Amino acid sequence: MNEKIEEILREYRKIESLSHAQRVLHWDLEVMMPEGGIDHRSESLSTLEIMQRDLYLRLSEKVNSVNDSLDDIEKGIIRNLKRTIRYYSLPEDLIKRIEKVTTKSPVIWREARKKSDFSIFEPSLREIISLSKEVAEKLGYDKHPYNALMDLYEEGFTVDDADLVFSKILSETSRIMKRIEGSNFSGNHPLEKKRYSKKAMEKVNREMIRILGMPEKRFRMDVSAHPFTIGISIDDVRITTRYEGKNFKSTLFSTIHESGHAIYELQKDPSLAWTPVSRAPSLGFHESQSRFFENIVGRSRDFVHLIYPILRDNLPLESYNEEDIYYYFNNVHPSPIRVDADEITYNLHIALRYEIEKGLLDGRIDAKDLPSLWNSFMEKYLGIEPKNDAEGVLQDIHWSQGSIGYFPTYTLGNIISSIIRYSFKNLNELIREGNLVEIRDYLRQKVHRYGSIYSPKELLRLSFNEGYNPDYLIKYFEEKFF
Amino acid sequence: MNEKIEEILREYRKIESLSHAQRVLHWDLEVMMPEGGIDHRSESLSTLEIMQRDLYLRLSEKVNSVNDSLDDIEKGIIRNLKRTIRYYSLPEDLIKRIEKVTTKSPVIWREARKKSDFSIFEPSLREIISLSKEVAEKLGYDKHPYNALMDLYEEGFTVDDADLVFSKILSETSRIMKRIEGSNFSGNHPLEKKRYSKKAMEKVNREMIRILGMPEKRFRMDVSAHPFTIGISIDDVRITTRYEGKNFKSTLFSTIHESGHAIYELQKDPSLAWTPVSRAPSLGFHESQSRFFENIVGRSRDFVHLIYPILRDNLPLESYNEEDIYYYFNNVHPSPIRVDADEITYNLHIALRYEIEKGLLDGRIDAKDLPSLWNSFMEKYLGIEPKNDAEGVLQDIHWSQGSIGYFPTYTLGNIISSIIRYSFKNLNELIREGNLVEIRDYLRQKVHRYGSIYSPKELLRLSFNEGYNPDYLIKYFEEKFF
Repeated sequence: MNEKIEEILREYRKIESLSHAQRVLHWDLEVMMPEGGIDHRSESLSTLEIMQRDLYLRLSEKVNSVNDSLDDIEKGIIRNLKRTIRYYSLPEDLIKRIEKVTTKSPVIWREARKKSDFSIFEPSLREIISLSKEVAEKLGYDKHPYNALMDLYEEGFTVDDADLVFSKILSETSRIMKRIEGSNFSGNHPLEKKRYSKKAMEKVNREMIRILGMPEKRFRMDVSAHPFTIGISIDDVRITTRYEGKNFKSTLFSTIHESGHAIYELQKDPSLAWTPVSRAPSLGFHESQSRFFENIVGRSRDFVHLIYPILRDNLPLESYNEEDIYYYFNNVHPSPIRVDADEITYNLHIALRYEIEKGLLDGRIDAKDLPSLWNSFMEKYLGIEPKNDAEGVLQDIHWSQGSIGYFPTYTLGNIISSIIRYSFKNLNELIREGNLVEIRDYLRQKVHRYGSIYSPKELLRLSFNEGYNPDYLIKYFEEKFF
Repeated sequence: MNEKIEEILREYRKIESLSHAQRVLHWDLEVMMPEGGIDHRSESLSTLEIMQRDLYLRLSEKVNSVNDSLDDIEKGIIRNLKRTIRYYSLPEDLIKRIEKVTTKSPVIWREARKKSDFSIFEPSLREIISLSKEVAEKLGYDKHPYNALMDLYEEGFTVDDADLVFSKILSETSRIMKRIEGSNFSGNHPLEKKRYSKKAMEKVNREMIRILGMPEKRFRMDVSAHPFTIGISIDDVRITTRYEGKNFKSTLFSTIHESGHAIYELQKDPSLAWTPVSRAPSLGFHESQSRFFENIVGRSRDFVHLIYPILRDNLPLESYNEEDIYYYFNNVHPSPIRVDADEITYNLHIALRYEIEKGLLDGRIDAKDLPSLWNSFMEKYLGIEPKNDAEGVLQDIHWSQGSIGYFPTYTLGNIISSIIRYSFKNLNELIREGNLVEIRDYLRQKVHRYGSIYSPKELLRLSFNEGYNPDYLIKYFEEKFF
């Protein structure tokens, strides 16, 4: 290996150790910490973050001095370091202002949502948008300031790409929805209101992670308010789920979704640990794995067949047979709330957020108009009108946390997962046989093992000879729902 | 506050953040981590330790430049920093050799103990002793090299102090044991073999921490192989216990013992957080609190009265009444194993280890003679002969971890706890009433709130006008057992 790179990697061990600690601290905060611990924990996390930033910036000169011919991994290391250093090179004052507003805004957002009053949150959002514009200007961009922000989550993904993706999705979804209307997939299902016993459902979820092949000695599952996955290290990956007490598919698919993320974390090439290419190349790619397992595997007819006996033995399914459960898992109906949306209408929620964020960034949209704008988009895209701000413009926490440019990656996850789906020769058979080993191995070969050696666009090209092409997603919808 | 001190404390926030992270990482490792995570975790912990050392050493110049007149807290800050910096100033090569041998030795010790063969462990112990001598020489000492090592755990405690303490304890204990022989306290108790249901015992332990007043939002209790307490922060203190399945007093007193440690951590002055005086002044002082609650409170006749209804409602006590349980909690009988020892004979186990460590350090004892020497000490002090090395010289993990000079602090804990006991005016009444609030408040006032502003000797003098005086412990034994 290149000598300068070796030197950089030696220094990087400190960064990775800090980062490992931060991940454990975050997991502990969400899952285990007595609530009294929050102040000391937040203060520590923020100090560790500053220490990490300092370490990155101190690497800057070394990173910039690497000019030799490099192999792919070495190039990936330098590319990733440069991206992080570029972000941490934002003026300290700007970073502090962002930290300040994104610390208090989620609290304000919660109050606004509780009172269903956007005007409470508007000043915070205005500040966040203004800071985001400043970030975009400092980072620099081609054509559109929103590009600089999306790039933070999905390297190289631009407004030009997104416009193509969402215009296609919008027109095709509308056609697909019309076609589904009145079919077995359409409308609500009685099981959505049905309560379950938490203990029984825990057993079902344990069975799910067994079927998905989560390795006992390298994995754990707990409960938290908001389900998430965290790769503490390649041999210590953790997910959480939650039990709402009714509509059992909610916790079931949350568990499968997070397991998809976890499989990604578990299957990276171990030799990438302790390097800057040990993470996924983008949020879209990470999300593609959770959605692949949740939707393409988990909601398939063959998977229902595979797990039906487990459901039947543990849950009060009454007289619902496999077929019924399949429709319950896949019922389609426009809902005002993104996280309640089905596979198809989900992307409309994202298209709406994309248009709004883009407009906020380039000034075509003003924050004060958001509630009415939101509702008119909802009407146009989904044909429904939110009852109030709480189930409209205030439903997501993301903006209050300063995450602008993040939402599109959810749809990119869907797109990539369907590209992967059609690159399989015999996926349905493998699912029917419960041969998750082969499915996992394929994903390891094609995606997981690379970490972020390649940018998401490079990896899509390398492994699937594709771009962010939404056609596969449309094809998948047609094959499944028509 | 002194300007230089303020500057030092600003830098110290990084150290405390790292240290907070290390504590969470350790807790997680013992209690939650999937076993696969151990390699990455160990590597991270060791890197964070190096980073912490660097931060301390970088503070060195500033710390040494403080010459102004300081108040007690400021003096404490400088004293503690100097102590830590002195330790971290040991040659890097020496620290690395210690790290290396203390990483592999516990594994070797486990094998040796399993095979009950001291010769397997002897080379490791020899190396550890030799490194400990080197540490003592580098740190410097008055009179005896062992002083330098004991000082790491109990600031200012010397061989002269220890000789006084242990000679008194040895002679008095022998007298006390003779007197107890044949009394209700003497010998084994049938409940030691009695099995309990884990679920019922968990409930009893929950009741114990409720009675002791552990605050729900700042405390948690879990299960681990070896019970321990960790102060993650002043508002996040955690203990663990374990369930052996029989002899219920074992998990009961383990829980009370660790709760004593936890109360210390919970009751420090909050303003000391983020300073180098936020810890206890010594291991002896910390142990005094666990033993105060375990032995002086927990094994008292009045405490038995207080908790008897809880025990009776949850455990199969058969026809044992309060009085019987009191004798079960306090039965005295020499045992070869330190951790199984009763309050009285416990200190004989420590006296033995003290003599051996002292002799190993000054060269009067050679490692190869340890098994026979151990057994002759056991015969002399406790009148019993260990069956083999496993229940003799190989019973404790401490030496393999490089902890030489640590054992005496257990007896110092007993001594300090009895000094505290006799400084109370009405302890028995408070226990009988279940008035743990007042007991905790008293300990907060006298001990906990000070953190390590004062050295242990200073604090003993300040709060109790005493030194490490073993007379109170003897008096306590006489009053309790005669």
